[in-house]
Amino acid sequence: MAYLDNSATTQVCEEAVQRMVRCMTEQYGNPSSLHSMGVAAEEELNRARGEVAALIGAEPAQVFFTSGGTEANNLAILGGAAAKARRSHKAVTTAYEHASVAACFDELEQQGWQVTRVAPDAGGTISPAQIADACDEDTSLVSVMMVNNETGAYTDIAETVRLVRARAPQALIHTDCVQAVGKLPIKATRWGVDALTVSSHKIHGPKGCGALYIRKGVRILPRQLGGEQEHRLRAGTEPLPAIVGFGAAAAAVPPFDEQQRQYTALKRALLAGLQELPEVRLHLPENGVPYIVNVSLMGFRSETLLHFLAARDIYVSGGSACARGKRSRVLTAMGLPEPEIDGALRISFSRHNTEDEVARLCAALGDATATLQRRKL
Amino acid sequence: MAYLDNSATTQVCEEAVQRMVRCMTEQYGNPSSLHSMGVAAEEELNRARGEVAALIGAEPAQVFFTSGGTEANNLAILGGAAAKARRSHKAVTTAYEHASVAACFDELEQQGWQVTRVAPDAGGTISPAQIADACDEDTSLVSVMMVNNETGAYTDIAETVRLVRARAPQALIHTDCVQAVGKLPIKATRWGVDALTVSSHKIHGPKGCGALYIRKGVRILPRQLGGEQEHRLRAGTEPLPAIVGFGAAAAAVPPFDEQQRQYTALKRALLAGLQELPEVRLHLPENGVPYIVNVSLMGFRSETLLHFLAARDIYVSGGSACARGKRSRVLTAMGLPEPEIDGALRISFSRHNTEDEVARLCAALGDATATLQRRKL
Repeated sequence: MAYLDNSATTQVCEEAVQRMVRCMTEQYGNPSSLHSMGVAAEEELNRARGEVAALIGAEPAQVFFTSGGTEANNLAILGGAAAKARRSHKAVTTAYEHASVAACFDELEQQGWQVTRVAPDAGGTISPAQIADACDEDTSLVSVMMVNNETGAYTDIAETVRLVRARAPQALIHTDCVQAVGKLPIKATRWGVDALTVSSHKIHGPKGCGALYIRKGVRILPRQLGGEQEHRLRAGTEPLPAIVGFGAAAAAVPPFDEQQRQYTALKRALLAGLQELPEVRLHLPENGVPYIVNVSLMGFRSETLLHFLAARDIYVSGGSACARGKRSRVLTAMGLPEPEIDGALRISFSRHNTEDEVARLCAALGDATATLQRRKL
Repeated sequence: MAYLDNSATTQVCEEAVQRMVRCMTEQYGNPSSLHSMGVAAEEELNRARGEVAALIGAEPAQVFFTSGGTEANNLAILGGAAAKARRSHKAVTTAYEHASVAACFDELEQQGWQVTRVAPDAGGTISPAQIADACDEDTSLVSVMMVNNETGAYTDIAETVRLVRARAPQALIHTDCVQAVGKLPIKATRWGVDALTVSSHKIHGPKGCGALYIRKGVRILPRQLGGEQEHRLRAGTEPLPAIVGFGAAAAAVPPFDEQQRQYTALKRALLAGLQELPEVRLHLPENGVPYIVNVSLMGFRSETLLHFLAARDIYVSGGSACARGKRSRVLTAMGLPEPEIDGALRISFSRHNTEDEVARLCAALGDATATLQRRKL
């Protein structure tokens, strides 16, 4: 098998599975219980909080667990907007955010907010200066993803925070780092960002857990009400098995420079292989990350190709998993022609992928172009 | 060890753990991915949906997975209120709901809703007729728990639906069945209730998963926005490990009559043992379930007692886990005197408990009353 769809989700690592099993069969207390089994569960919770905090350059007290990246994004944007609503109703985001961010801004627009969506250039890149230029002193909410989930386009968040603060000193600045965490260094506190989203299942932890970093002193209103868990920001018994799995996965992340070398080599091999194929269109944003490659084989629909590949035990995606075959908003925002959008494939690496797997992918794509009927464009 | 705090949380069963491990290490696809690994994950998702549906007497299509009972209660009440908001702003609930329901009604009150909270009688019981009496034809939202989490008080939901419909035909009727599911038969469709909450971690499934049953045709607005998961009612990659664990736990639930016999025997043994202790006050609602027993040992604080017991590897709680040592709203609503509330213990059984464990608890409580200093009341 060659699983090259790691931006959709990843295999859970052994470290995470082991800790989760222990948390379910031995230390299965409720962290809110006052007795020693509850205390032991709370210790596991806080150990995981420390591990996730360490991975993203934050203090543990600033890390709030959620049920996933979507909940964390919703909490930051809708909970942040609720806290800011008395100041102004102006927000800035990009045209290529994940659905869980984009849908929140659509909702804010329904509520009367004025939302500016910065579009990527034809290469797929959005610069910190573009974001800042869209802000003014009335802007109260800004959300920009660090790494785009379909193209790997990268925006420097530290620089974005610096430039946005100068234009919109009162704005709550949020970044969705779901496609960056575990693969690129994140320095939440140092960057000075107000809120930052990460997810477990993109870093070899289980699905069902994410976290929102919130800078000290920043006010975000809770959206899930009930008990006093997560410092009253997020009610509900903590998803402890998933949380300890997330913590274990965070602790197991290999050094970033080592990963970077590996992904760079894989990307180089992939691009060399793709060059051999006829009518390939690469969508490679400037400064794009090396672990996501987006490509169109002209004349073939992405769904046809990914089924052809899956039959050979090779897994990639067309666009993002969350869009389920609908036309990519990201590539549309880049202004690409329709046949190129409809034929896009996303290849996304994890640290477990090898150059041999990449070679198998390229060979299978070669078979596809030779075997499948090319559509008229 | 004698773990007698099963209303707080339960040990995850072997069936659930096994299926979860397979879902994380082998079938780790994203259910939204279009390729065969995604399809396999979606099949696991739907298998679990069928298992949970079967446990609660529902069609699979009416079961929507959430991150837990709290999210399901929030979705039913706040999402239900949002859908009903144009009709009226009148709601009826009880004074002894779980925090995740109570907090939602507090929020609705802030938003201008008129909320009636039906109090239990001195014995702790709330009857269907009491609920219905609080409704009128303007009532648009009703939420009543089936089994109270602190006292085991039971309300007949089928009868409640029948009586409320007659008074408030337009009302959305919700019931929190978190403390009933897996131990008592639930017939969601037959009862005609509009929305019904269940949770995984009270039935030997993992924490981090719950479900909301929604009757066909009933409108509830989503609260978590993004992708199109769960028929657009609840965005976000599904917490698949927890979901398959929930499904496996649901499928492993033993016959209800068998459980009922076991809990009845355990309760009888417990009550007999408690009678031997001095100054015991039992809080036993009429028709209370046999798997939750609430008792005060006069002159001893519950926290003192539960630490004394935990030191002997016996686990019970004082009030609910979610209240974390704050004075019980439930016992307060029953009008109990303060010293009785502050000394309350909740003993809650699972199918793994034995009469020997109950005997050990009673012996340890006997030691406690003989050893610990009795407080002046």
